[in-house]
Formats: sequence, C-alpha cells, structure tokens
Amino acid sequence: MAVYKSDQQDILFNLNDVLNVSQNEKYGFDIASVKEILIECDKFVENEIYPTRIESDEVGVKMVDGKVIVPECLQKANKLFYEMGWYALGISEDIGGSPVPEALSAACRSLSLGANTAWSMYPGLTKGAMSVMHKVGDDYIKNTYIPKIMDGTWGGTMCLTESGAGSDVGNLKSTAKPISGKDGWYKIKGTKIFISSGESDLYENNIHLVLARTPEGDAGTKGISLFVVPRFKLNEDGTCGESNDVTCPSFEHKMGIHASATCVLNFGDEDNCEGYLIGKEFEGMQNMFIMMNEARLDCGMQGEAQANLAYELTKQYVTERVQFRTELINHPDIKKMMLKMRAMTRGMRSLILYTSNLFDLAENDEKYHDYIGLLTPICKSFCSEQGFNVAVDAVQAHGGYGYCTEYGMEQFVRDIKIATIYEGTNGIQAVDFVLRKILKDEGKALRSISEEIFKSSNNLSDAFTFERGVFSKAVAASQEAMGFIGKKAQNKDMNLVLQSCKDFLDLSSHIIIAWRLMESAMVAHEQIEAGASGSDKEFLETKIVDFKIYCSQYLVQSISLAKSIVSVEDDFATYSL
Amino acid sequence: MAVYKSDQQDILFNLNDVLNVSQNEKYGFDIASVKEILIECDKFVENEIYPTRIESDEVGVKMVDGKVIVPECLQKANKLFYEMGWYALGISEDIGGSPVPEALSAACRSLSLGANTAWSMYPGLTKGAMSVMHKVGDDYIKNTYIPKIMDGTWGGTMCLTESGAGSDVGNLKSTAKPISGKDGWYKIKGTKIFISSGESDLYENNIHLVLARTPEGDAGTKGISLFVVPRFKLNEDGTCGESNDVTCPSFEHKMGIHASATCVLNFGDEDNCEGYLIGKEFEGMQNMFIMMNEARLDCGMQGEAQANLAYELTKQYVTERVQFRTELINHPDIKKMMLKMRAMTRGMRSLILYTSNLFDLAENDEKYHDYIGLLTPICKSFCSEQGFNVAVDAVQAHGGYGYCTEYGMEQFVRDIKIATIYEGTNGIQAVDFVLRKILKDEGKALRSISEEIFKSSNNLSDAFTFERGVFSKAVAASQEAMGFIGKKAQNKDMNLVLQSCKDFLDLSSHIIIAWRLMESAMVAHEQIEAGASGSDKEFLETKIVDFKIYCSQYLVQSISLAKSIVSVEDDFATYSL
Repeated sequence: MAVYKSDQQDILFNLNDVLNVSQNEKYGFDIASVKEILIECDKFVENEIYPTRIESDEVGVKMVDGKVIVPECLQKANKLFYEMGWYALGISEDIGGSPVPEALSAACRSLSLGANTAWSMYPGLTKGAMSVMHKVGDDYIKNTYIPKIMDGTWGGTMCLTESGAGSDVGNLKSTAKPISGKDGWYKIKGTKIFISSGESDLYENNIHLVLARTPEGDAGTKGISLFVVPRFKLNEDGTCGESNDVTCPSFEHKMGIHASATCVLNFGDEDNCEGYLIGKEFEGMQNMFIMMNEARLDCGMQGEAQANLAYELTKQYVTERVQFRTELINHPDIKKMMLKMRAMTRGMRSLILYTSNLFDLAENDEKYHDYIGLLTPICKSFCSEQGFNVAVDAVQAHGGYGYCTEYGMEQFVRDIKIATIYEGTNGIQAVDFVLRKILKDEGKALRSISEEIFKSSNNLSDAFTFERGVFSKAVAASQEAMGFIGKKAQNKDMNLVLQSCKDFLDLSSHIIIAWRLMESAMVAHEQIEAGASGSDKEFLETKIVDFKIYCSQYLVQSISLAKSIVSVEDDFATYSL
Repeated sequence: MAVYKSDQQDILFNLNDVLNVSQNEKYGFDIASVKEILIECDKFVENEIYPTRIESDEVGVKMVDGKVIVPECLQKANKLFYEMGWYALGISEDIGGSPVPEALSAACRSLSLGANTAWSMYPGLTKGAMSVMHKVGDDYIKNTYIPKIMDGTWGGTMCLTESGAGSDVGNLKSTAKPISGKDGWYKIKGTKIFISSGESDLYENNIHLVLARTPEGDAGTKGISLFVVPRFKLNEDGTCGESNDVTCPSFEHKMGIHASATCVLNFGDEDNCEGYLIGKEFEGMQNMFIMMNEARLDCGMQGEAQANLAYELTKQYVTERVQFRTELINHPDIKKMMLKMRAMTRGMRSLILYTSNLFDLAENDEKYHDYIGLLTPICKSFCSEQGFNVAVDAVQAHGGYGYCTEYGMEQFVRDIKIATIYEGTNGIQAVDFVLRKILKDEGKALRSISEEIFKSSNNLSDAFTFERGVFSKAVAASQEAMGFIGKKAQNKDMNLVLQSCKDFLDLSSHIIIAWRLMESAMVAHEQIEAGASGSDKEFLETKIVDFKIYCSQYLVQSISLAKSIVSVEDDFATYSL
C-alpha cells in the first residue's frame, strides 16, 4: 500500500529558487530555515494528520444526544496541531503567532490540508474568523476571543448562507436588534445553513461571525452588518457560561468531507441570542470578505493540495502494480496520464505559492494587491476544478481499486468537489474575474501582469521553441477573446459577456499556470547549464518536462476555449431548453 | 423537488424520424407501436424503478449471517421488471422473449438503467450471461438454465477478474479439472474478485460464467476456457440442491453503485465446486467477449442514461430555484451549462441508439458489424466519461444542494464513475480502438463510416455555415492525427502510437457525436421547412440548437486534441516521474 509522500523537492524549489522567499528581509529566514520548517511540518502531517484521513471519512460526523461529535481520531491531531505551533505559523506576532514568509506558510498549510481536508476546515475557518477579529475587531473582541482561539480552546465559523440566500447573500433574512443599555450588543435571530464547522466537540466554544440585518439596514448586501456570536455566553471571568441560544438541529449528509460538520444553525429561537457588532454597521459584507477572500484561496489550495497527494500516492501504485508482465507505469497511456497529473499539480502549486508570496510583496508595492485580486478567482476556480480532475485521474489509474474506498482515491474526488461550489461557485468566480477584476479597472491589473508574462516568454531559451509557439498562440487567442468580450461589454450585450466569463477564466488560468511553469523551467534550465548534477539534475529535468507537457497537453486547449468564445454571436437566452 | 422525467420526444425523434426503426420489416412495428412501448416502459420506470434510486444507495448491500442482502426496495422492482415483461423485451422469441427493434430495446433499457444503475446490473449481467448460453451453450445448458433465468428465478454473472489479473485477464490462476466419468463437467478452483451481482437475495440461484484454465491450457488468454458454474447444484428435478462450494466471504465498499454487490467469490475451497464447459475448450475468452461487448455498450449507456436523467432533474431545479431575483436558468452561465449538458446528453443518446440500430442493419450488410466493432469502444469510453462530466455539471448547477445526498445529484457522479473503469478501462478501449479496430484492418471500417459522415456534411444546408466550417476543420485535424499515428505505427514507434490512442479516441468520438447531431439537425431543419408548427416546431428548434452548441462548445476542442497528438515527438517513456 502506498504511504504518505509529499513533493518536498518541488516545494522547496518554488520557495527558494523561484520565489526566493529567504531574500525577504522582513522575516530574516535563510534557505536552511525555510527547509527546516517545511520538513518539520511534513513530518507532523505524515505522523499525525494523514493517518486520520480515511478513518475520519468512514466514521463521519455524528449527532449524539443533540451534540455534534467529530471522529475520535481528529481530537488528538487537532490538539497537537495547536500545541506544536502549526496553527500559529504565519500569524502575526502581536497576537502570539510565528510570522514566516507567506509562501512558506501556504506550503505548510497545503500539506496539512491535503492530508485531511475535512479536518483542516475546523482550524481553517477558525483562522479566517480570527483574522476578521484581528483586522476590524475592537479591543473587547481582541482581548476576549483571540487568546482562547490562538491556544485552540475555541473555534470559529463564518455564517452567511440561508435557505433562500445562497450565492445571493444580500437576500438574507436574519435580523439583529440593538439591546438597549448594552452598547454594541444585538439580539440575533435567524437560521443559517451550510455552516462548516458549525458545531463540534473539537472546541469548548464556537465563535460565529454572523451576517444579519439591523433595523435600519437597507435591502441587499449594503444593509448587512457582521456580528460576533459565541455559541456559549461568557461569564464575568471569561469562562463559558450558559447557551447563547444557538442550536444545531441537524447537519447535511454530503458527497464528501464527511468529517466536517455542515450545520444548520438556529440563532435566537428563544429570543436569547446575543451578538456583538464587529466593524461598522452596514459594512458586514466587506468585513466578511476579509475572511471570504482567504477562504477562496483555501478552496483553490484544497484542490491543489489533494491533487498533489493523490498524485504522489498514485505514482507509488503505478510503479508497483504489474499488469501485462510490466508495471503499470510502463504502459504509455498510464505514463502520459501521470505526466499530465504531475504537470497540473505542480502547475497549481506554483500558482498558489506565487499568489501567497504576493501578500509579502504587496507590503511594498500596491500593484500586487491588484494581482491578488485578479488571481484569487483563478486560484479558487481553476485549482478546485483541476484538482478534481487530477483526483478523477488518480481513481482511473488505480482501476477497480480506485473505485473502492479502501485505497482512499475516490475520497479525493468526493472531498475536492465541494471546493468548486462553496465560497462562491466557480461560475460566480468567473463573473468576479471578468466584471470586477478586469472590466471594472479597465484591464489595468491584467495588463500589468501580462507585461510580466511577456517578459518571461521573451527570455525563453531556444530549448523551448515549440513551447514558445504554443504560448504565443494562446496569448494571441486570449487577447482576441478579451477583445470580443470588451466589445460586447461596450455594446451592453451583457448576456454575451456573462456567458463567456467561465471560458475566459479557464483560458486565462491556463496561460497563468503555463507562465509559472515556464519560470520554473527557465530556472531549472539555467541550473542545469550551470552544472547541476546527480539527483538535483534529475529533479531539474522533471521541471522542464512539466512545462513541456503543460504546453502540449493543456495550454493547447486554451486556444479552443478562445475559439468557442469568439464564435458565439447568439445570446443563449434566446435558445429554449 | 424535481420529479422523474425523460426526454421522450427526443427518444422518439431518434427512433422514428432519424433511424426509422418502424421501417424494419422484420419486426413490423409502426410508429404508433414504437411510441406505445416506449411510453409504457417510461411509466414503469417512473413508478417502480426511479423511486428506489436514492433509497437503495443509502441502504446499500449488507452481509447478514453470511448472506448478501440487497436493499429491500429492490425486491418488488426487480420482480415486476420480469413479470411485466421488460426483461424479455428485445430477446428472441425462441427462448420466450419479445423481439423489438434493437434501438427501441436500447431506449427502454436506457430508461430503466438511468433510473437505478446499481439495480439494473442484476438483470443486466443476467441477460449478458444468458446471451452467452443462448449463443454457444449446448442443449443441456439451454434447457436447464435459460427458462429459469427468463422468468427471473435465477440470475447470472461474469467472473473474469482475479487479484493479479485485472485488465490482464490472461494472467488468471483459476483452474478447471475434468471430472472423470462426468462428461463436460470440471472441478473449478480459484478466487474471483470484483464480481458484480456475485451474490444476492434477488435470485434463488446465481449462474456464474467463470473463466478458468484447464490442465492443457497454455499460458495467456488463449489457454482459457469458460464454465457455467451454478451457485447451488441442481437436483434431478431441476430444483436447487446443495451448495456448489461457491462462497462470498466479502464484498467491496465502493464510491458508488452501493446497491450492487461487488463480490469476492471463492470457487472450490472444499474441492466440491463443479462447472460445465460452455463453448469449446480454449475458446473461453472469445465466448466471454459475447458478453463483454454487450457489457461495454451497457457501460456507455450507463453514462448516457444517467446523464440524461441528471439533465432532466437539473432542468427542473434551475427553472424553479430563484437567486438574485430571478430563476437560475436566467443566469447566462447556468443557461450555457444547461445547453451544453443537453447537447452532450442528446448527442450520447443519438450515438447509443444509432449503434444499437446497427445490430438490426448488420443482419443484411456485413459492414455494419465492423461499424459496431469501431463504435463499441467509443460508446463505452466516451459516454462513460462524458456522462460523468454531465453529472458533475448537474451537481455544480445545484450549488450546495448538489453536494448533499438528499437531491441525488452527487449519486450520479459516484454511480457513473465505475463505467470508465470496468469492462476494460477507457485506456484499454482506446488501444482496442486504434490498434484492433483501425490499424489492424488498415482503416477499412473507419474509411467506410467516414464516407457516410462526408455525405452528411456535404448535404448540410446553408443554415449551418459556421458548423460546416468547424466540422471540416475537425475532420481535417483528425486525418492529420491519424496520419501521424499511422506513420508512427509503420516505423514501429509503438509507444508514440500507444500514448496517442486515448486522445484519438476522444477526437473521433467528438466527430461521430457531432455527425449524429448533424443528422438530427438536418431532419429537424427539413421538418421545419415543411411547415412543422406549435410544440413540434419548438422541439425541432432545440435539435438545431443542440448541433450548434455541440459544434461551438465541444467539437472545437477536438481540434486541440489533434494538435496535442501531432505535436509530441518524444516517447514519454524517456521522461522520468
């Protein structure tokens, strides 16, 4: 049976050779310390997180005496995650964290997330909620909640969705009424659904961030405010007291992430639920977006991380399993499938780590904020979808065994799928990408990043003549598609624009990923030319292969996406189903 | 909640207007009787089969006191399926069946299969096993087993796979030793795995077709023979007697088709398992292929049928669910997704029904046998894969609800996936397609069907100028790819050939499906020109849309598949993982 394995060499290559994170003076990390942290994290994930993956899926979340109980095996893993300092990694020092370069923090998060996504959502959402408290909370919030969250005693959630308000958050019905004589406090009333980690026995208290409308709030998203609503009220001494009238009558039965409790939560059934306003009134959506943007990147990482692990496990399987008198890997169709899986998973990794690194770069250059905005829907949408596809291929390469639960391959397919849906469906990401991130700023961010891309491809060595050709064609095709979309937008043919967004997002994603793999291939090429040898050279050669495979197998498809876009002059609304 | 719905109008359009099955004099069915049978079948499926779909998935197969128990709800459905004559539909009269045009029989099978694939495997494999008995069994077999199978008392299976012999059947270890003094009978010994319907309480006895090697059998597939091995030995009077030493120690826990028992079967642990040789010794593989070819078409149908149902249910959901103050269907991205799903599902249907119809045509023209051979791997591989993709889109269009088990959408994803693996993985189908079905007969069948395709596209009206252009480009690209593959084969660069098979299969599939949708669009176009009106006209217009959407959204991709093939001159075996 295949054992846990990560692609350490490639992660470190990205961090140290492509992104040069150790050169960021803010952290003062040298190459050796980046490596040390990554290896330590990998060991922890291998020993404590990965062994829970299949078991926690099989056991799933249970409702026992009205309480939500997570699989027992997660208790120890979660506890150690905090105790050994992995939760604190990448969090700022003022609240007790251990700052490290953002890309290193992301690499570590990716390891633990890939090894058990369902579990990772508990500390993941907690971190997101804490991040909002840290950024917009007042001293009361910071002093009351953050220390208990940092040490793993309390968890956190984000409560947006209601049954009539899924993608359309602005349609929510939950209300918040000021409590007279209790400044900042409101009575919260409403029912939220699809609340990940909504209840669990992993934490003593759960601190919910709840979107609700105050009496003066207008209809739509602009009238919504955000509230901190603890599951249990706090006593004077800060310990947990009586119930805050937050109940979980049930949770969803889902395709995957069985160990993650996706709860229905009732707030204020007994009119006794109290929440504290966080940030300004009516700024709920934008404050929630602090958390949501992080969650969107995490969605992409869910695809990237699980795909990477699925690839590593499958690589072992096809190298061992013999059919027709030779190992599976010697069958050309399987070999090609594996090369494509690797190119895609490493491509996604290079995008995720590049994007994470932008958070550090953005401290000194505003334009990187725009890059993050532009790349967030790409990371979320493309990596969740392609991660799913890689997992499907992992099942396929395993044959009948891939379909059986025992090998854990089909679990990747089931677990990844949700990432294409939650935190804004991929369709919504595409609209965000084209309308808000491109058309709204008149293509400024897109043009700026395109210039960097052109610079790279102009520097491409002659060892990559074919790839340069495909790349140029893909870029030209995407410019044609963008021109088409821009013209339709100018003519107010908004349906034509909207029905093209998803293809344009995918097309742009292919180009961006090919660009990141191109950068890696160029570094690898230089290092080989400079005399790299032995296992280093072998690894560097795989980086060149990744780029070649991506160009011939994936990038080429982006051209047909462009052709699909520009060939449709009919508004699909005029077609009947 | 969405209710069961089939695309009756499109099925009848295919049968009566495109394939003209009522003109086949062998059956003497007029248009009205084709319609009547289809409608009756649809009612049965709606009332008896569909209601078991989600329940049987949730309950799953159980092992109780060493016996395999299927979900209770399947008992009545399965019984009625036989009693009401649906099992007998399409089976020849000499064994008590009700012959109908093959395409009509396929359309009916598709309805019941889509409504509960896991259940359908019990009568489906039974039918396959019976078909082998009918075609190559001697009178003893025919008289002893077929009547009890026809009336639903006994079931059947196919037993190929062993733990070291998955795709590589020739590697099997099961043995058969002649029993002296009992002519035709052998002692069977061995362990088979992944045996669908291997045991169940749906039938009193299970008649296994088992591949095993006789003492004189050579290594590999050519030394394998086929045996009829009943689960229970038969008494003199034909009733079930003692156990035939066939036991089921366990079954697999799987991603989907939870109601289908995927069994480990031990034959002859006590050296008391007796099997009867069916067909000639050493001809086991070719006789099993009678069943396997049917099963391969059924795999394709599993994709096609479930995708069609998933589409119909999703159509209802997106027409009802309101987000952002309008039904989902009014959002261009969702509309496009639905149009693509419909074009693909109807495209698959048109391929499946066309291929089924060839069985009737082949009685008078040998070339159609070659068409069936050529199209079998396309049906199996492309429809299982694209059916899966449609199901994934159905989940996506449902948003969070699609991920919850309650709506039954994620079940389609889980249930369809197996069809890309069993009965020969899709990778193996691709090798069969290129090596056996094209290169081996020097492209005869491919050329012959291509001529029909050219004839259609030459007749294409000027209403389809854009589509004609895409179609020509796709055909030209596929010819270039075939030329590339042919040259590599000539040069004995077999790895280059083998690593291109799957893409070439997909590319050919796109062209074939586009051709079938083109034929439909042309018929629809003529009928509209001839004055069709009202709801008929509305339907006919959707057939034109299907073809247009297929061309602009899917066929265009086949061109990039061709580009991928011809751009790779490296043998991937030279690349390291």
